[in-house]
Amino acid sequence: MVRKNGRDSRALRPVAITRNFTKYAEGAVLVEFGDTRVICTASVEESVPSFLRGRGTGWVTAEYSMLPRATHTRSSREASKGKQSGRTLEIQRLIGRSLRAVTDLAALGERSVYLDCDVLQADGGTRTASITGAYVALADALATLKQRGLLERIPLREAVAAVSVGIVGGESLLDLDYDEDSSAEVDMNFVMTSSQRFVEVQGTAEVEPFTLEQMDAMRSLAMDGIQCLFDLQREALKG
Amino acid sequence: MVRKNGRDSRALRPVAITRNFTKYAEGAVLVEFGDTRVICTASVEESVPSFLRGRGTGWVTAEYSMLPRATHTRSSREASKGKQSGRTLEIQRLIGRSLRAVTDLAALGERSVYLDCDVLQADGGTRTASITGAYVALADALATLKQRGLLERIPLREAVAAVSVGIVGGESLLDLDYDEDSSAEVDMNFVMTSSQRFVEVQGTAEVEPFTLEQMDAMRSLAMDGIQCLFDLQREALKG
Amino acid sequence: MVRKNGRDSRALRPVAITRNFTKYAEGAVLVEFGDTRVICTASVEESVPSFLRGRGTGWVTAEYSMLPRATHTRSSREASKGKQSGRTLEIQRLIGRSLRAVTDLAALGERSVYLDCDVLQADGGTRTASITGAYVALADALATLKQRGLLERIPLREAVAAVSVGIVGGESLLDLDYDEDSSAEVDMNFVMTSSQRFVEVQGTAEVEPFTLEQMDAMRSLAMDGIQCLFDLQREALKG
Amino acid sequence: MVRKNGRDSRALRPVAITRNFTKYAEGAVLVEFGDTRVICTASVEESVPSFLRGRGTGWVTAEYSMLPRATHTRSSREASKGKQSGRTLEIQRLIGRSLRAVTDLAALGERSVYLDCDVLQADGGTRTASITGAYVALADALATLKQRGLLERIPLREAVAAVSVGIVGGESLLDLDYDEDSSAEVDMNFVMTSSQRFVEVQGTAEVEPFTLEQMDAMRSLAMDGIQCLFDLQREALKG
Amino acid sequence: MVRKNGRDSRALRPVAITRNFTKYAEGAVLVEFGDTRVICTASVEESVPSFLRGRGTGWVTAEYSMLPRATHTRSSREASKGKQSGRTLEIQRLIGRSLRAVTDLAALGERSVYLDCDVLQADGGTRTASITGAYVALADALATLKQRGLLERIPLREAVAAVSVGIVGGESLLDLDYDEDSSAEVDMNFVMTSSQRFVEVQGTAEVEPFTLEQMDAMRSLAMDGIQCLFDLQREALKG
Amino acid sequence: MVRKNGRDSRALRPVAITRNFTKYAEGAVLVEFGDTRVICTASVEESVPSFLRGRGTGWVTAEYSMLPRATHTRSSREASKGKQSGRTLEIQRLIGRSLRAVTDLAALGERSVYLDCDVLQADGGTRTASITGAYVALADALATLKQRGLLERIPLREAVAAVSVGIVGGESLLDLDYDEDSSAEVDMNFVMTSSQRFVEVQGTAEVEPFTLEQMDAMRSLAMDGIQCLFDLQREALKG
Repeated sequence: MVRKNGRDSRALRPVAITRNFTKYAEGAVLVEFGDTRVICTASVEESVPSFLRGRGTGWVTAEYSMLPRATHTRSSREASKGKQSGRTLEIQRLIGRSLRAVTDLAALGERSVYLDCDVLQADGGTRTASITGAYVALADALATLKQRGLLERIPLREAVAAVSVGIVGGESLLDLDYDEDSSAEVDMNFVMTSSQRFVEVQGTAEVEPFTLEQMDAMRSLAMDGIQCLFDLQREALKG
Repeated sequence: MVRKNGRDSRALRPVAITRNFTKYAEGAVLVEFGDTRVICTASVEESVPSFLRGRGTGWVTAEYSMLPRATHTRSSREASKGKQSGRTLEIQRLIGRSLRAVTDLAALGERSVYLDCDVLQADGGTRTASITGAYVALADALATLKQRGLLERIPLREAVAAVSVGIVGGESLLDLDYDEDSSAEVDMNFVMTSSQRFVEVQGTAEVEPFTLEQMDAMRSLAMDGIQCLFDLQREALKG
Repeated sequence: MVRKNGRDSRALRPVAITRNFTKYAEGAVLVEFGDTRVICTASVEESVPSFLRGRGTGWVTAEYSMLPRATHTRSSREASKGKQSGRTLEIQRLIGRSLRAVTDLAALGERSVYLDCDVLQADGGTRTASITGAYVALADALATLKQRGLLERIPLREAVAAVSVGIVGGESLLDLDYDEDSSAEVDMNFVMTSSQRFVEVQGTAEVEPFTLEQMDAMRSLAMDGIQCLFDLQREALKG
Repeated sequence: MVRKNGRDSRALRPVAITRNFTKYAEGAVLVEFGDTRVICTASVEESVPSFLRGRGTGWVTAEYSMLPRATHTRSSREASKGKQSGRTLEIQRLIGRSLRAVTDLAALGERSVYLDCDVLQADGGTRTASITGAYVALADALATLKQRGLLERIPLREAVAAVSVGIVGGESLLDLDYDEDSSAEVDMNFVMTSSQRFVEVQGTAEVEPFTLEQMDAMRSLAMDGIQCLFDLQREALKG
Repeated sequence: MVRKNGRDSRALRPVAITRNFTKYAEGAVLVEFGDTRVICTASVEESVPSFLRGRGTGWVTAEYSMLPRATHTRSSREASKGKQSGRTLEIQRLIGRSLRAVTDLAALGERSVYLDCDVLQADGGTRTASITGAYVALADALATLKQRGLLERIPLREAVAAVSVGIVGGESLLDLDYDEDSSAEVDMNFVMTSSQRFVEVQGTAEVEPFTLEQMDAMRSLAMDGIQCLFDLQREALKG
Repeated sequence: MVRKNGRDSRALRPVAITRNFTKYAEGAVLVEFGDTRVICTASVEESVPSFLRGRGTGWVTAEYSMLPRATHTRSSREASKGKQSGRTLEIQRLIGRSLRAVTDLAALGERSVYLDCDVLQADGGTRTASITGAYVALADALATLKQRGLLERIPLREAVAAVSVGIVGGESLLDLDYDEDSSAEVDMNFVMTSSQRFVEVQGTAEVEPFTLEQMDAMRSLAMDGIQCLFDLQREALKG
């Protein structure tokens, strides 16, 4: 089996992280995993949801959406249908949990950060690209708060990034694109922190249940791939 | 750390599977994992969703809900709020995927099976109990179709069951109840088939990211626990 | 005309009232009128709706729902359709009014009792079974408040119960089951208090308008039937 | 107790029925019971709801609404809230059932009549005025169909009208206005046909349960009052 | 081209403005432009929307709706569809802006006026009739506040009125009725104040783009027509 | 009054039109008016809305949305609120009408083109930028259909573009940015075709009604500005 552009089974697609992609948000990142392109903005609001009010602790949450023509055929717009799909809600809950896992919410104080992940173009792995880009947007937004004197230090414990892996034609592949994903037997997403620990693991047998050995092979691919993403995030944040 | 009723860290709560719990549905199961009680009904409809029409293949899908007072404090009713929560949608998508993974949809023909999982009482593990009970309801519904001469054989490839595991106070525990789940550092759900393969794996660090070793310890617990569930399903289906 | 199981035209179906059917609610009753089975829970909240705030008076309200497969063929779930039907709203308004009619809301204080009536299995008379069972759940919940020292006395003025009557094939029948109800010319529901007074009366000509004499015959049947229900409620509350 | 304008306890308010109040509808009636004013239009559509398609039978249904400032204080508009209240749904279901009870749906053929009852000004008794006026609008619409040669005869079996009665300060009163209704202990609505039979009976104890004798007294008042309404309908339809 | 009733291309249809059309609202006007009939009520509430709270300034807003059978064929009711159409929202925003433009919101104080424009019968020009009638209802409501001693003076800077113009068969016509509007090449609405200034201008090429000269011709017709409307408003307010 | 970057009152901001901005849509344009950035995609579907089915004619429609952080402060997402605002609906109706005005719908055949205008960054004039960019996306999509042999010729009659004008501090300005728009006394939008004719004209007095002379001054500015936009569109389409 040959991957597009001769990519190795253990290789990520070209990843690009562009900061300050738009001008208003406290953090605004365009993240690209090959042809998958997602705008991740981090917006700070000086209030928290009602269930947290008065506790002195902050909140980080995410919203996810795809532009109608981010995909091969046009999807109808969730705003005009009047509700978000189960897939959308599931993804935005995943992004939110992933980012909260590395944030020191007590140190953030009673304020919220909204991470909006809007997919301009979808070619597989939009949720993992979103998490990876949202981390950079969050870091930028928190740095902005520090510069404004609202925080003494950046309340992030470590970095977080995510990647997809799958089994296609019996072979484990890192970072599936849309065509690979469509024909995958199994699809897993790993979210990890820079201390090599797991925040979220999600695996789904699309066609055929998978064995322990297959799970371990995919996990191993993912752990290596995520290390590269941490390097790219660090690089981007230096710039 | 001592579990309620002196339960071993590797032990399931008492599990009971009662068939024919209500009288109209083609399959109607009350499943109990300790104090967690879920009614799982399987309803057959002689049509498929529009995206499958004319392909000669069937569909299996699930809906999940909790009665308002299934929980310690009353939750407001999703029907009166006018929308289902992200949690509800996520769980019912998981149940549906899990049951489709063991069903031969082509052999089912152009008909749908709706699995309704309604939680009467929630004490942790409602989604895994739902999957475990829904399998029995589905088997009953398909047997009914066979008895009516609508199917030549029961289009199930193997059994499917699910269990939760977690880390509480640093220790891996099987089949968390509500109190354990509320204080868990990590929460994982495993859905497996009777051929020892995985259909779904979901792990979430609630408090602290988890290591590879912890993931393996939880996985091992889950694999053993699920074997017991297959025995209980087989037992119930004999009756 | 012969009724199922040789039932007399003036007889109720077997009625069972099971308290403490689930463990969290302040009152939790399973009520059965023949094959009609409804869970009625009473949940106490220490607040009142905004239109009552600050008046020192309490509130009693009801919500009603049927599980999707409580019926012969599956009904789609109101939570997933995103709205409650007119029938549902009408029934839950009726249940709420009926229970408020016997509650001393001023003596209840600024708290609310939610009566959730969830139909597990529907075989005619779900609204009247709900009212009859909800009364017992309400009595239990108020007794709980008294035990906790939150109330000096149980703020109920008298008991309330309800029954359906109808005209089938020209004959007046008490407590219609689904098959009878489906072929009834007229359908009436009576809600009465233990002092022999009426709280709600609702009669509908399904096929043919009815005469004064027919209304009187049905009313007389209902008044006798409800007396039996008061005995059963008293019996259940003793246990 | 003295009623407004010295009205007798057994007297209706001045009732006016104006046909052809607007120009497009097949039937268009303004009905007034004192200061209660409702526009009732009957609109014919050459199709039936899907559950009746292909059966050769027709359908009559109703929708009810109040203009935002039909009442003392402005009510928010249901269209802008995005849902109809339980009260609205309950009333429009009542109007629909009442009119279907006197219509020969088979003779109507596969067409629908929509009765829209829009309250311009509400001073008590809007639902009973709506039924009374909607009958005239329906008769006009069916006469129009006959004139156009679409029906051989007008498929109405008899007339239908409705009135409210109540107990105020212990006294039974016919046709309550808003002030009386607000202080009523009991409120009943009767819907009858011109053959002196009942289509719908609804009684509610607002404050205090009512006795058999009180129910009979109210019923007797209502039966007399409705006879006057039949005269007024006949008169209007002659014009 | 001959207009209905031999109307001149520069002539309005007969316009009637009836005050106190219903009894509860602070201002209640029936406005008629030929067969177009709209009830405009002005309701005062002693609060403002949250975005204005605490600023000492008032608010004027509008809601618009058509009765289902205000039109040739019945339109489905927005309340039962659960949402307002884009057309409805667009019109009510226009009415609100138009009336705010002549109101001294600061002098109104922290209170709101709701202008409800409900179309009983639609024969073209419902939005311009609504604005013209709503001004009179607003003036009445503000006069009522002054009479009650809540305002020292009526906080209106000048009058506002509106008219439609269009090009039909190449000819510019004032105040289109439904038939003219349906065949118009261009449709413009002008909202002006009594000081001869413009508040809103909206022109749409329905079929064919229009030239500068055509726009000027329409504008000229509209300016003359609106002067007549100011006279009619003044006349009505004298009565 | 000095404009940002010393811009002349009669000058457009720098305008850029980038084709093929994303890879799936038949037409995909990024349009920039200064810091206002909008993605306009044109998606072709081989069907028409039901009201046009079977007539052999096509349809062009638009949807508009802003990313949550396209603005200074985050706006909540319409998909998660469950409905589109009146402003959104008004703008997307305007865009749709504008593009239909230059399309030969009969020549398009029974297919639809969806124009999705998603605002990445909003700095004033998003609706006029959307129309200007959507024209280029539409032209690309129609050229694609012609290349695929589905159309014999491109069914566009002429070009369409739009610009905003306003009065700020008494002075007429072309192409307002956000700061200018926020302090404008009057705001007008002009949509014109390349034959110098008007498709849509919308003017709103935000603060103070405007005179005939002011309207003429704004119109004159707009007419000149739109000529530049036609040049830029032509230029872009050549590339």
